[in-house]
Amino acid sequence: MALRQRCPQARLQAWARRAEAAKDLESRNLADLATTDAAQACEGADLIVLCTPLENMIPLAEQIARAKPAPNCVITDVGSVKGPVVSALEQIFPKTSFQFIGSHPMAGSERAGIEAARAELFDGSACVVTPTLFTTNHALQQARWLWALVGCRIVEMSPDEHDAKVARISHLAHLTAAVTTLAALRSDISASDCAGNGFRDSTRVASGDPELWTGIISQNREEVAAALQDARTALAELLDAVESHDDKALLRLLREAKLLRDSALSGGSVS
Amino acid sequence: MALRQRCPQARLQAWARRAEAAKDLESRNLADLATTDAAQACEGADLIVLCTPLENMIPLAEQIARAKPAPNCVITDVGSVKGPVVSALEQIFPKTSFQFIGSHPMAGSERAGIEAARAELFDGSACVVTPTLFTTNHALQQARWLWALVGCRIVEMSPDEHDAKVARISHLAHLTAAVTTLAALRSDISASDCAGNGFRDSTRVASGDPELWTGIISQNREEVAAALQDARTALAELLDAVESHDDKALLRLLREAKLLRDSALSGGSVS
Repeated sequence: MALRQRCPQARLQAWARRAEAAKDLESRNLADLATTDAAQACEGADLIVLCTPLENMIPLAEQIARAKPAPNCVITDVGSVKGPVVSALEQIFPKTSFQFIGSHPMAGSERAGIEAARAELFDGSACVVTPTLFTTNHALQQARWLWALVGCRIVEMSPDEHDAKVARISHLAHLTAAVTTLAALRSDISASDCAGNGFRDSTRVASGDPELWTGIISQNREEVAAALQDARTALAELLDAVESHDDKALLRLLREAKLLRDSALSGGSVS
Repeated sequence: MALRQRCPQARLQAWARRAEAAKDLESRNLADLATTDAAQACEGADLIVLCTPLENMIPLAEQIARAKPAPNCVITDVGSVKGPVVSALEQIFPKTSFQFIGSHPMAGSERAGIEAARAELFDGSACVVTPTLFTTNHALQQARWLWALVGCRIVEMSPDEHDAKVARISHLAHLTAAVTTLAALRSDISASDCAGNGFRDSTRVASGDPELWTGIISQNREEVAAALQDARTALAELLDAVESHDDKALLRLLREAKLLRDSALSGGSVS
């Protein structure tokens, strides 16, 4: 949708798991060709983007590796974990036909399906591209071009650095949103009578697809566990301040959190 | 601002702590009279709304109690904790001149000051009104009228029930947003290079005023501590699932959180 809008001259070929989904893409004029045959979808392609849950990425890549793309075809993915995916895909794609580079646009929503799709999804989001020693300069430039085209701010780092940072900034936030929801509503869901935008925003990502997120977290287990341990420590500090009537400690912790967030997201808060 | 828009015929008198703030209100035509003298601001008033941090509410109420409002004047507040505030204010206001009822509109943002003010702030938000045995029917009806006028959905419950529910749906979410921020950024703020909307939304309330929130939490200490203990339990369950490679347990917890949130906020998720 974003490519149709920003690059209307491009020929778009799409793969979908289900025939109805492929048909739907064509009838919405979101693809010039849509098919359930991955090799066919990739025929003659200059640039391929893998957009599936992590656990389906490798079998799909193996089908694509048998396709006949254009010369110097670049292939990238949008997986939320990069280390294991990048090293697997670098081995699957024959270097003569495909130049692989990992990507992770930090955009999305808790909603699924084509009804939730928006051409503006990527506008202003960070997109991490993760070159390695095996990445060609052409692949890096093509990936940067693609994500900048749809509106992303590009950040470059290694797959491992990506996984460590994203464990804290994304995967952790998913799990703490689940913690907030469980602690708020498990004992009495009627507390939601009083829900305001604070609760709605704080827990939004907890409405994401549980299967998808279980897959993501299991691929980034060690980094996520380390982030959760730090969350356990911070929670214990806050609980101790509240229980021991230590309002100075509570104020200090809330100030530290505000300062960190405001510094990290400079460019202003979003109401 | 909301009243000016929805009730342009009303005469609005405002109190502000600082003379410049009072002047600013008049120059923006947001008040017909703006003053730093609380008794003057309340003279002849039919309806008074106290909008200050909790720790300033009682001294301000004591000044107002000496004012000369209109007959049957109703006074309400917007404090985020109701039990202690309502019982203090019910004792301060002489029943012949003021009919008090507590309110808590579940609207606001992490931003402060008049530049952050919006006439639409209350649109679609819940507003809890908290009548007690001492509340007159006239006060209840006036408070319901006021909050419905500015766009709120009214919920009625006792001050204690409010405090228990809001500890979970609002105060807890504030503290877990601080936890997420601290665990994400304390060890390395550069993780924010990868921040997407998920992190931004999940931690938005952590940019709220630390003094204000320390005051709120200290007034609702026991209920907040109970909510934080439940958060500690939920976090331990998630960490255990991640560390022990128990993806079934992880999936079950994420499903439980999604189901609770989607049921609680039915009317659809906000992207």
